[in-house]
Amino acid sequence: MLDDLPLLDAHCHAVTTADLDADGFARWCTEASTPAPPGVSYLDGPAGLAVRRWCAPALDLPAHAPAPDYLARRAELGAPSATRRLLRAANLGELLVDTGLPGDLTGPALAAAAGARYAEVVRLETVAERVLAAGVPAADFAPAFADALTAAAREAAAVKSILAYRHGLDIDPERPSRREVTAAAGTWLRAGARRLTDPVLLRHLLWTAVDLGRPIQLHTGFGDRDLALPRSDPSLLQRWYAMIEPTRVPIVLLHCYPYHRQAGWLAHVYPNVYIDVGLTLTHTGPRAAAILAEYFELAPFAKILYSSDAYGLAELYLVGAAQFRWALSTLLNDWWLSRADAERLARAVAADNARRVYRR
Amino acid sequence: MLDDLPLLDAHCHAVTTADLDADGFARWCTEASTPAPPGVSYLDGPAGLAVRRWCAPALDLPAHAPAPDYLARRAELGAPSATRRLLRAANLGELLVDTGLPGDLTGPALAAAAGARYAEVVRLETVAERVLAAGVPAADFAPAFADALTAAAREAAAVKSILAYRHGLDIDPERPSRREVTAAAGTWLRAGARRLTDPVLLRHLLWTAVDLGRPIQLHTGFGDRDLALPRSDPSLLQRWYAMIEPTRVPIVLLHCYPYHRQAGWLAHVYPNVYIDVGLTLTHTGPRAAAILAEYFELAPFAKILYSSDAYGLAELYLVGAAQFRWALSTLLNDWWLSRADAERLARAVAADNARRVYRR
Amino acid sequence: MLDDLPLLDAHCHAVTTADLDADGFARWCTEASTPAPPGVSYLDGPAGLAVRRWCAPALDLPAHAPAPDYLARRAELGAPSATRRLLRAANLGELLVDTGLPGDLTGPALAAAAGARYAEVVRLETVAERVLAAGVPAADFAPAFADALTAAAREAAAVKSILAYRHGLDIDPERPSRREVTAAAGTWLRAGARRLTDPVLLRHLLWTAVDLGRPIQLHTGFGDRDLALPRSDPSLLQRWYAMIEPTRVPIVLLHCYPYHRQAGWLAHVYPNVYIDVGLTLTHTGPRAAAILAEYFELAPFAKILYSSDAYGLAELYLVGAAQFRWALSTLLNDWWLSRADAERLARAVAADNARRVYRR
Repeated sequence: MLDDLPLLDAHCHAVTTADLDADGFARWCTEASTPAPPGVSYLDGPAGLAVRRWCAPALDLPAHAPAPDYLARRAELGAPSATRRLLRAANLGELLVDTGLPGDLTGPALAAAAGARYAEVVRLETVAERVLAAGVPAADFAPAFADALTAAAREAAAVKSILAYRHGLDIDPERPSRREVTAAAGTWLRAGARRLTDPVLLRHLLWTAVDLGRPIQLHTGFGDRDLALPRSDPSLLQRWYAMIEPTRVPIVLLHCYPYHRQAGWLAHVYPNVYIDVGLTLTHTGPRAAAILAEYFELAPFAKILYSSDAYGLAELYLVGAAQFRWALSTLLNDWWLSRADAERLARAVAADNARRVYRR
Repeated sequence: MLDDLPLLDAHCHAVTTADLDADGFARWCTEASTPAPPGVSYLDGPAGLAVRRWCAPALDLPAHAPAPDYLARRAELGAPSATRRLLRAANLGELLVDTGLPGDLTGPALAAAAGARYAEVVRLETVAERVLAAGVPAADFAPAFADALTAAAREAAAVKSILAYRHGLDIDPERPSRREVTAAAGTWLRAGARRLTDPVLLRHLLWTAVDLGRPIQLHTGFGDRDLALPRSDPSLLQRWYAMIEPTRVPIVLLHCYPYHRQAGWLAHVYPNVYIDVGLTLTHTGPRAAAILAEYFELAPFAKILYSSDAYGLAELYLVGAAQFRWALSTLLNDWWLSRADAERLARAVAADNARRVYRR
Repeated sequence: MLDDLPLLDAHCHAVTTADLDADGFARWCTEASTPAPPGVSYLDGPAGLAVRRWCAPALDLPAHAPAPDYLARRAELGAPSATRRLLRAANLGELLVDTGLPGDLTGPALAAAAGARYAEVVRLETVAERVLAAGVPAADFAPAFADALTAAAREAAAVKSILAYRHGLDIDPERPSRREVTAAAGTWLRAGARRLTDPVLLRHLLWTAVDLGRPIQLHTGFGDRDLALPRSDPSLLQRWYAMIEPTRVPIVLLHCYPYHRQAGWLAHVYPNVYIDVGLTLTHTGPRAAAILAEYFELAPFAKILYSSDAYGLAELYLVGAAQFRWALSTLLNDWWLSRADAERLARAVAADNARRVYRR
């Protein structure tokens, strides 16, 4: 049943259509940002296994074909053709694309290649850095950012915060005053900094996003090494979820692992908090079914969302989708559920919950 | 074998016998304290599944009957009659009831309805707030609280602390001096506060409980949103467990999830620390068997206790008991154990450990 | 296949060959350091089950023989003979022995008894305490420690840090200046302290080990109660792994539980970080297979190492090895993997990864 159900991939990124050698391909399959040491291959791990299992058949190879055979076949087809096959095999109904990361194929063209509908996710920090780089006076930063965000997000399904990368979620959640924002913007502008890391400005971005009213996707849990893992635990922002609850703006906690149990509790007790399994299932190979089940321990079923968080390789769109379908089928088979309950739960998590939250 | 074994439910609360509509019923099935947003139902999650699986047969419906059918049948029987059926179906040998929360049916009457023996659990903060509200001078608070606790706990099996709700477990564990307690009581009385949150007074309560010598139940891990989850990790109080070890007063860590692995280690290395699976199994539906097994990773088997932490609905008494029996059976079937070992382990966790710890 | 594969046990300790009564035996089977309370036995838990399952057959008893039968048979054989049988049954190819803990049988003689090759692991804190106890002037501590470590580690496969026990991993990871080291050594010497706990000196030890260039084993996660569990999370040292990455010195995170998912991410994103399953599998009995799988969620397969962390009882060498073989077989059966992939993965984790990291 899940195979025929188009997924709403609620958080994903651009793909590259360049030809890739083995090293280049492997680097896209990991959150590591530096070369592997001698004797270690980034393909010889959970994500590599998942690519070989799920993607080889889409390129006419048997599942588990060795990596060199897979790469040879990919090159034979050409990256653009392989990309199209892989995206189509994922059976996606709609993509919400975070356009804050570069790539050859993104936005509506990426969705078209996947045969899916499209909406944008706007990254708060990217908009703010653009406003600051344009030379706004410090005193005008707050209204200029609000205007820029409103314009950027006019058609967007959601906005996204990478506070976990820029500071950590252990931040004072109070709304900063206009005076504080101006002072922080002044300091930042005088320092000539590019990458926005000031905590006052970062929480101003979040509060401005709340004013905008779109769902806010929040990076939580693992990612690349630019974040401090203990400071990415989504329960560190508990006070903020409570503060903004009256606005009814949905907060979607992305990834969450290894703090996904904490995230499930947040979704249980805060009406405005949702959780998203993206990135986690892609990188955990044969463990994805066991891990997905842990997202379902406390969260109401209408609070759990699918995304792939795919970036760079079209393979990661298919891996995300196939891992999710396999993991959710495993869960539904293992659980005591009536058939009617199982079907409703599958439809909810595959797309219905996202449609409701993102108003698609 | 487990079905026939009466459980000692070592931590539970009053139930309501009022007739409930669907919303009212759903609100009792969650730790959320505010209404669910549109599209979300608190019954459509792990706890709701568990109620439908385990409780429907006790009301003559097939397992997994839809929620509206269940509620209709419950209304048809009348809440008092349904309550009695559900409590009896749980097969409980004894209840230790925390009488600090209100309800229609509590104390000995609740135990009688369940066909079980009874003992009380006395909430430290409730006693202290009563003493303070009665207008005790600050300088007399320490002896007045000690007297009031001794009186309140004369027949009690245990006392209970909700430090996690009132401050967090990240507290200085040293015993405060009499002078410090008097000063803190004075400040508190002058502020006219009702809800005791002063950390000096809270730890004075704990140390007074140690003097009393009864087992101390400690809320740890998840609960409702009034607590800060990262500050409910029971390993934050490690120094205190060591300090009080010479007194041999048992400390029972309630709930623990998602820090139950940390709790298991505490039970492993501190002779005076025990762990209790209450609340967790009730709220995690089909995941309860997998989670229960995690409590058994490091703790000596004689250190693991059962409770339901049921509150409000008689259903939660039955869900707690049924989930525990199902989860423990699953564990005993999955593990490599001799039959004799399995039976001993089941009897220990179902009641024998609690009988020893609480001297029942 | 795994039964025939000799393991490289990359972190282990001395064993006792004294005759042991039931209490003495039980005390070696736990990380608890004080007697169990009435009604609790340290053998009646996961580790005790594992000893009875895996070790009884090596002494000609059926698996799961009751503990008294096991101890009687052990006494009948005599501890030295039982020790030899147990070590041989573990099928070990090489032992890397941390010689910083005392025992009757250690070093080359221990390896010979196991029929295994041998190399040493040198404990940093032990070397430093020896240098300080020898009366070095504070200003000479840094060069004297460097010389002593170089001499002690001439033939060693690795060095080891117990920073988690002496301070916690929440330490400033910057290299201290020579002036700071001298001042800290002076303070330490004037205080006449024996057990090195000064954070400046502790991180100086780590940085001196980096200069030496041998792999560094780092205690992380659980152990006995001398450590503060929340401060043993290996992700607390993230900045240090990044700082020393250019040196290419391997850091092996030992144990890790219950932070092994955090550790797997560290191994995923830092080329110089590895994870080791020692101690965890020994103490978690029938849960070891489920837990081992969690180490494989994010780490590249070439980054995962075996050790037993056995200490005291030869039983723990066999339990560690048998639990690992059983748990890894379970994983390989449960996963979707080609047979060729499964065999390669088994060889890698059983010994090949350790051979490469420790240059054996």
